[in-house]
Amino acid sequence: MEQTSPAALSASEAARRMQDGLLTAEDLVRACLERIDAVEPAVQAWQYLDHGYALQQARAADERRRSGVGVGPLNGVPLGIKDIIDTADMPTENGCALHKGRTPRADAQVVAALRDAGAVIMGKTVTTECAYFSPGKTRNPWNPEHTPGGSSSGSAAAVAAQMVPLALGTQTNGSVIRPAAFCGVFGFKPTHGLIPRTGILNLSRTLDHVGVFARSLEDVALLAEALAGYHPADPDSRPRGRPPFVRILAEEPPIPPMLAFLKTPHWARMEREAQEAFGELVEALGDRVEEIDLTLSATDAWSWQKTIMEAEMAASFEREWTSGREQLSPQLRSLIERGRELRAVDYQRALAGIPRMVESFDELFVERYDAILTPAALGAAPKGLESTGDPAFCTPWSLAGMPALSLPLMQGTNGLPLGVQLVGRRDFDARLLRTARWLCARIEPQR
Amino acid sequence: MEQTSPAALSASEAARRMQDGLLTAEDLVRACLERIDAVEPAVQAWQYLDHGYALQQARAADERRRSGVGVGPLNGVPLGIKDIIDTADMPTENGCALHKGRTPRADAQVVAALRDAGAVIMGKTVTTECAYFSPGKTRNPWNPEHTPGGSSSGSAAAVAAQMVPLALGTQTNGSVIRPAAFCGVFGFKPTHGLIPRTGILNLSRTLDHVGVFARSLEDVALLAEALAGYHPADPDSRPRGRPPFVRILAEEPPIPPMLAFLKTPHWARMEREAQEAFGELVEALGDRVEEIDLTLSATDAWSWQKTIMEAEMAASFEREWTSGREQLSPQLRSLIERGRELRAVDYQRALAGIPRMVESFDELFVERYDAILTPAALGAAPKGLESTGDPAFCTPWSLAGMPALSLPLMQGTNGLPLGVQLVGRRDFDARLLRTARWLCARIEPQR
Repeated sequence: MEQTSPAALSASEAARRMQDGLLTAEDLVRACLERIDAVEPAVQAWQYLDHGYALQQARAADERRRSGVGVGPLNGVPLGIKDIIDTADMPTENGCALHKGRTPRADAQVVAALRDAGAVIMGKTVTTECAYFSPGKTRNPWNPEHTPGGSSSGSAAAVAAQMVPLALGTQTNGSVIRPAAFCGVFGFKPTHGLIPRTGILNLSRTLDHVGVFARSLEDVALLAEALAGYHPADPDSRPRGRPPFVRILAEEPPIPPMLAFLKTPHWARMEREAQEAFGELVEALGDRVEEIDLTLSATDAWSWQKTIMEAEMAASFEREWTSGREQLSPQLRSLIERGRELRAVDYQRALAGIPRMVESFDELFVERYDAILTPAALGAAPKGLESTGDPAFCTPWSLAGMPALSLPLMQGTNGLPLGVQLVGRRDFDARLLRTARWLCARIEPQR
Repeated sequence: MEQTSPAALSASEAARRMQDGLLTAEDLVRACLERIDAVEPAVQAWQYLDHGYALQQARAADERRRSGVGVGPLNGVPLGIKDIIDTADMPTENGCALHKGRTPRADAQVVAALRDAGAVIMGKTVTTECAYFSPGKTRNPWNPEHTPGGSSSGSAAAVAAQMVPLALGTQTNGSVIRPAAFCGVFGFKPTHGLIPRTGILNLSRTLDHVGVFARSLEDVALLAEALAGYHPADPDSRPRGRPPFVRILAEEPPIPPMLAFLKTPHWARMEREAQEAFGELVEALGDRVEEIDLTLSATDAWSWQKTIMEAEMAASFEREWTSGREQLSPQLRSLIERGRELRAVDYQRALAGIPRMVESFDELFVERYDAILTPAALGAAPKGLESTGDPAFCTPWSLAGMPALSLPLMQGTNGLPLGVQLVGRRDFDARLLRTARWLCARIEPQR
């Protein structure tokens, strides 16, 4: 029997083996680096990678374990970090020509949390320009002629290609859920503010979220639990207990969950094949799913999101606009131009819509449903690298700050993955994970 | 010896006497109503008052005490409530022609807290139109030809005229500190978000504060402690322990406080007499005060405040603008017109200045000073009722959300009060009260 490379292990399994003395962090990281050497030329997931430094961190993790001082839950586990998340020991260039050679003095709060948990910061993954729409160099590991999705392109591709078991991304509109769906991995964008954004490129305070990529739900829970926490420098972070994601994920739901299938106004734009796949999925779920209409308060979600993103990004990139707009892509430039013209009253009207929308979804959850089932994207990853795809199916949940998961449960006829999106009630992230585990188990036999 | 009317007692003293069985709430409220009957024709502090209902609440408070069920710290103490704060049992008209006859279905959170503490909700006090600049009918109790200040005109005047020992107001720019100074009472605007604004007319989320009026610092502490608390429907409210204002006010500062005297760019506009009075005050404080310059990060405070107030009020009064702008005053109309033209990027730039400004003041407090000493207004209450005066000396602290007190420590030659403003570090409200008590004791002999 051929031995599986440690690079193919889930983070949870690798952590268990290291705990049991069956695997060293050095061997794990070495296996991941070998895998990267083999597939990176085709995938192009990394913006910055230093083999020697990664191995040095791995040896330090092994030494920590040997020394008998306590080790964190991610001790020796390698991770990719989207290159808009500051690292004190690696450049952070935000995918932006104007930020070339930028070397932050401090780690982002999430990077500090990862180091505290013992993780090996493998390197920085490719982002689109300033986490907006202009693509980086990354290709879809399933077919290099297709986009990996964006903006967290490198993180999704690196996890899908088994270069690392885990990676961090961010989402302002659909930048975790969409690349996760296109690359066929699990993507999780928790409730707004649950993971602090201190030290991460600020696009839009209202919409920016940190998210995670993994190849199993258990790994999603493991990583998200290590990242969740209060940080006062993020104005949307709140003091609350650390959510016990790993423990609750492992629990059985007390009664079988009920899902609300939501097509949204963008269903008509979907690929026929993806529509059919969802039809079959809903059929397979039988009495555990009911189709619902979009709540009235969410009808304007897409236009509100556009207003807020344009207004806030125009403010966030004021310095880049003033000092070097000619070095920005035409997409980003025209977004900022639109944002600069918006009126404060229209911006505030859009902001004021959010709590009403959250409330309308809360009612659905209180009354009947455990999660909303909806597509993650218009279909599988589109061919071509000039665009990272359409985020329309992610927009309402980014705006409402509701937790969302992309589950790699289906495939298109071209062999590319099709993502299923499961959306939970705000602040009920753990319950969403538990519901997702139930859904995966229920669907597995039909795949 | 003539017996002092219970209406002249402080709330704390009245509460003690009721506790000891020396005074009933009914007698206290009756005395306040008699005082109102005597001076209201000249002062015009009340928008709504129902003698019978006030006495009914007082008798209920007496009955609670007699019955032996526990009573709250304000049991039987009468209060005035600014008429932009919702009351379920009295109209709340917001000083706005369009809201004539408005009867809220629920109490504002602060009103609920007062009822819980046993207070008698005496009635609703006059506000300027929508708590902006267009004056109500109230006159200064010290001289009816002078403004009482605004927008919490009726609350300040009612406390000054001994109609009630306590009243609630709100401040968006200078609407607690200025009328307190003009009417010669204590005014306290705690840290932004410390007292929840749920159920109060929303002018500007960033700038709106609840504040209190009283005739002693002990009463300020008593009332503010009853009001402070978390309420999730106010987005700037935070869970934190109830600050022990009464206890800390009574403590001696561990070392004599050091004050920072700040003239601000508006010093030159002050009345000569007020400048001289402040000069004498600073001299009397000797080595306990040092003059400082405005921090660089606060230079733009006045223009940021203007932008934020105009933008947020334009959004808050969108319905009034659409449905009946011709019934709004020219002042309010032109504010909304300016606000509707503001761009979202300029609004956000102003918002982004706040944390930097707070930080620059925090440094002063950490390094050396217990409080900032600064005028409460340009001078004593100006003659005339067509304006409520200038809030310039309150603007930075409303913007930064820092706690501010107006102390009735001085007088002008015309016999009208001159307010001394003491500003504390954000979230250090209790320490500000303690420092104020020290200042009052230190100054008292010179008065």
